[in-house]
Amino acid sequence: MDAGYITPFVASIQNVFSTMLQLPVTINAPSIKRGASPTHDVSGIIGMSGDVVGFVTLSFPMDTAKAVVALFAGEAVDPGRPDFADAIGELVNMVCGGAKAGFKDKAVSISCPSVVIGNNHTLATQTDLTCVCIPCSTDCGEVVIEVAIRPADAAARSAA
Amino acid sequence: MDAGYITPFVASIQNVFSTMLQLPVTINAPSIKRGASPTHDVSGIIGMSGDVVGFVTLSFPMDTAKAVVALFAGEAVDPGRPDFADAIGELVNMVCGGAKAGFKDKAVSISCPSVVIGNNHTLATQTDLTCVCIPCSTDCGEVVIEVAIRPADAAARSAA
Repeated sequence: MDAGYITPFVASIQNVFSTMLQLPVTINAPSIKRGASPTHDVSGIIGMSGDVVGFVTLSFPMDTAKAVVALFAGEAVDPGRPDFADAIGELVNMVCGGAKAGFKDKAVSISCPSVVIGNNHTLATQTDLTCVCIPCSTDCGEVVIEVAIRPADAAARSAA
Repeated sequence: MDAGYITPFVASIQNVFSTMLQLPVTINAPSIKRGASPTHDVSGIIGMSGDVVGFVTLSFPMDTAKAVVALFAGEAVDPGRPDFADAIGELVNMVCGGAKAGFKDKAVSISCPSVVIGNNHTLATQTDLTCVCIPCSTDCGEVVIEVAIRPADAAARSAA
């Protein structure tokens, strides 16, 4: 995968987390995801289409998700409440929205976020799509961004 | 939600399942989804953007997913194998790709599928997005299509 697809997300999560949550983010070494690991408790997923297609996920262990949502909302939010998923969705939306600006010469649009809540779920990437896992350390715990995007197929684009 | 947003998906799942799996699909009464219920074991998620934004999910209990994938692949596939998620992703991709043709006067693009595997996970929809749940009965068990899409915001479209 072109490194130019990764840097906008790295810059954006650092920017969003530091401005919205006052939470500095340390980026650790990215790796290519194999199979369906790692497992997650809370995932916000956004689809991308246009000149690049794929999806981007922000995943949290439950305790980290609770701590991050509490910072975002200014108070503890029970994970069963709709505002909990709203907050996770809004965070992934801001990270992807910010990253979109980094795709300077490409027309990219993003879908609304979808939020998955469930202990130890896994996200499987289609085998024809490379997924890069970027572990991020914060004082609230570890957050993982998974970026699985590729250039749109030329034939599909012209038919779209 | 405009009923015109639902009918393309209903027609497409019936078409895809009957042609690709020889599996007739009975559509049951749709309902507006409240909160994060129902729970799922296997979900294929596709983001939509363009003139409409949101996402569409095809969710299965594990036994139904296994039966459907076996029909699709022509043999039983272990859910831990990458081809299992590939098959689920390809099915949701075909259903959404087929439905796209039903949005005649709208430019709609779809992302690559993301597949979630995990017992009893829930999919939370952002509270500003109405999600319609359409239960579908098949001889392999129940499949649920969740359609959570809305017209793109005019301001966001012109800025995109």
